[in-house]
Order: sequence, then structure tokens, then C-alpha cells
Amino acid sequence: MGELIFVGLGLFDENDVSLRGVEEAKNADVIFAEFYTGLLAGLSLRRLEKIVGKRIIVLRRRDLEDECGESILRAAENGRAVLLVPGDPLIATTHIDLRIRAEKRGIKTRIVHSASIVSAAMGLSGLQNYRFGKSVTIPFPVNGRVSRTPYDVIAENKRRDLHTLCFLDLDVEGGRYMRIREALKILLSLEDDIGGGILGLESLAVGISRAGAKDGIVKAGSIRELLGFNFGDPPHTLIIPSENLHFMEAEALSVLADAPKWVREMIK
Amino acid sequence: MGELIFVGLGLFDENDVSLRGVEEAKNADVIFAEFYTGLLAGLSLRRLEKIVGKRIIVLRRRDLEDECGESILRAAENGRAVLLVPGDPLIATTHIDLRIRAEKRGIKTRIVHSASIVSAAMGLSGLQNYRFGKSVTIPFPVNGRVSRTPYDVIAENKRRDLHTLCFLDLDVEGGRYMRIREALKILLSLEDDIGGGILGLESLAVGISRAGAKDGIVKAGSIRELLGFNFGDPPHTLIIPSENLHFMEAEALSVLADAPKWVREMIK
Repeated sequence: MGELIFVGLGLFDENDVSLRGVEEAKNADVIFAEFYTGLLAGLSLRRLEKIVGKRIIVLRRRDLEDECGESILRAAENGRAVLLVPGDPLIATTHIDLRIRAEKRGIKTRIVHSASIVSAAMGLSGLQNYRFGKSVTIPFPVNGRVSRTPYDVIAENKRRDLHTLCFLDLDVEGGRYMRIREALKILLSLEDDIGGGILGLESLAVGISRAGAKDGIVKAGSIRELLGFNFGDPPHTLIIPSENLHFMEAEALSVLADAPKWVREMIK
Repeated sequence: MGELIFVGLGLFDENDVSLRGVEEAKNADVIFAEFYTGLLAGLSLRRLEKIVGKRIIVLRRRDLEDECGESILRAAENGRAVLLVPGDPLIATTHIDLRIRAEKRGIKTRIVHSASIVSAAMGLSGLQNYRFGKSVTIPFPVNGRVSRTPYDVIAENKRRDLHTLCFLDLDVEGGRYMRIREALKILLSLEDDIGGGILGLESLAVGISRAGAKDGIVKAGSIRELLGFNFGDPPHTLIIPSENLHFMEAEALSVLADAPKWVREMIK
């Protein structure tokens, strides 16, 4: 009976995979990878192939979504297949769908976990994980129209005194990555339209770029300040904190994320 | 100037560390580890020392909390120190506190991320990450008294149609690990006391044991069913899903977590 092992590649480059992940890849009959559900900005396919000692077949979005991963499933029916994915596997719906299809065809599946932007962003910010509410993706505008979902999620979290982790849209195959500046402008335009009084130029935000890279940046400040701040290359992530901070959260933002002095006034 | 690098060990054993984490440990002047903020059930210190090629100094809770990590900070002032920690670093408050202290003393800090139970539990359950609300820890009763916080968090998440990720209390140094059964009993006793009509024996829950291990278990079912189910050794984690499920969530719980048939009826 075949086997399909999902192996997480973590956040930044080929060195973020775990020892267990490398071992699973070395023992595989065939190794696939997809690089479209997340951006591993420092990754080199050649170096990754050297680490696992095998050729890696790179799948595109259409292989997994239009063709439902048929090529992987066939390989996994006849042996041991590994699928390398950005971040921690099964956070993306595509992987859950593929795993269900595999199990239904009698293929055993396993997961090798890895770092995810979900916990990395919380940790890097110094904000406390149990104070985060529902997270949300800020999508690219479609035909000039902007989804109001991110605004509604932030508003609801703020009402409950919770932080919001915002994933920024990306289209890896098209080479488009939303930056913190664009995300903030989208949120401000929603505030203009909706007028809920949730966000303004003086609201606190925390921007994170290239989580997991040595040159990654974490910067807290007013939206006005972050609009003018250079976060460098993608991937970017954004946190909108609650209206109150705990003492240690304010301390962390000050010391670790260069927050302005007025952040101290947000202490609960 | 000195340096302190926090390296995540991931979820289960010494093979969950990333290649980057091993490299950082090999380049360190001194390596510390703490194993009390999370349980790495399969880890062997000897094997970990073999992997990094150096002796590892194991710190206890009192070294980090009562003495505020003074031994690490002194080592980091004079060279390159690595602190190995369970999971993804900086999810635990202790690490955030230590990082702030280090930076205030002019020690540069960096993070090597790793798998966290936060994203692993979401991924293993097949429930969608953006449908999780605030997470919560279910603490051990103190003098027979049970905190009502977990109940209130679950109730508020359910009102918003969100899932709740529940971390179960542990006292690694004392060898006490809360099991899914104990956590469910605590929740049921809170329901009895508070009477909010949020949870009962027929409510859906998802139990996860030994996330990241080959013999890890993910099982969805009624609380009644899970109370009688053998999840094996710790660590255990619990998810209380919202009252509605998306189609793919119900499918995932059925195929990947052996959910009973009535879970299909929860489709939104």
C-alpha cells in the first residue's frame, strides 16, 4: 500500500526543513514540491535537491487544483511519495483536500510539521498568543473592489479586546506579493467607506517582513509611520493589536519592535 | 557584543529541529535547553547532544523564572549562546521576557522558528485556521477550584461561530500532564455550574495526542465518545469546534479523524 507524506519547509529557505523532513525525503520513492501556497524567499531548488539527494518535481497550482493532485496520488499509490510545502502543512485548504483524496483511495498519509507564519508572527511580535482572535487574509482588490471582510474581522476582534493577525495576499506564480503599505491603504479605504471608527492614521499596527530570515524586520508604530517605513522585500505580514496592551506586550513592542513612546499608554 | 539565539525544537523529538537550528547550535559557544514549557515526549538529550556535537546545559524553571535567566544572559554577554526550547520560541511568556532582558543588556537576539502546536493542531484537525477564535489553556484545578475562563472563551467563540483550540495544562517537572478526558470533565463540570447550555455529552470535540509523532492520534466525536476513548500517552490537545462546519471541515473530520456520521449534519 502506498504512502503520502506532507513535509513542511518552514518560512524562509531550504534550511528551515526539519531533520525528520530531510529523512522522509531521502526515504521517498518520489519527491514533489509546491511553492505557490507561500513564498520561501530564500529557497534554492538546487540546494534543496542537494540536501535530500534527489530530484524534486515541482508542481504548479493547476496540478494541485485543476487536476486535483492526480500525479501525486498516482505516485503515492505505487510507493512512498513526499510532498514538500511552504510553512506547516495542512494550513492551506489545497493540502487538506489532497490529504482527504489520498485517504479515500487507501493511501496512508502522514504530516511532518514545520514552522508556520501563524505562530512565528505571534512570537516575533511579542504579543501574547491567547490574545489573538480570528485571523484574516487581506486579499488583492478585484476589479477595483475591496473585500470588507478584513475590516469586519478586525472590528469584531477589537470589540473583544483581541489582536488580529492579517495574512497578506500573494500570487507566487504571478510574482505579486501584497506589501504592508498596500494592506494598510486597503484598511484605511475600508474605514473611509464604512466609517466604523476602528482604524485611523494614528492607530497602532505591527508590520513583519521576511519572518525567519536573518534580515527580517518587526516594526510597531502608527499606521501613518508604517506607511512611510521601508520593510524591504516580501513576504510581509501585518498585525492590528487590540486597543489595550498588557504590560509585557507594550514592553516587547518597545524593545523588540521599536514602538513609539505612546504605546506605553495602551497598557491595560 | 554577545548574541542569544532562541532555537525551536518542534513537537516530538530531537529530529524536529530544523537544519538551521542545528547549524546555529553547532556555531554556539554554549548551548542551553529548557524542557519545561512543553513536553517533547520522544526526545533524548543524549541523541540531541550527538546531533549538535556539544554538551547541552539543561535549565530548570527556577533558572529562567526565579533567576530570570541570569546564567544564559551572562553567557550571551560573552559570546554566542543558544537556547533550545520546545515548540516555536516566544509563544511562552518566559521566552519573551528573557528576550527583552537580553536586548536591554545590549545582547543581540535572533529566533529560529519551528513547528508549534498552534498550527499543528489546526492542520491535523482539518479545521480551517481562519475559523479559530481566541485560544485558551485549561488549567489544573487549584484546591479543587476550576477556572471558568476556558468555558467563557469557548462560549464566546461559539457565539461567533468559531472553533476553540484548548491547550491542556502541564507540569513537566512534576510529571503531570492533563489528558483529554480530564479536560472534558472540567468543561462538563463548568457547564453544570454555569448552565450556559454551551457544552454537553453530545457536543462535538476533537482530541489530538502526540502531535508530530508517528503514533499520534486525531479523533473527532461526541464528548461522551471521547471520554471513553484511549488517546494514549501525552501530550494531549483539545479542539471544541463551532456549531457549524464547512463542507470540507466535515469531510476532513470524517476521513481523517474518524468522526461519527452526525458530524455531516453540522455543515453550514
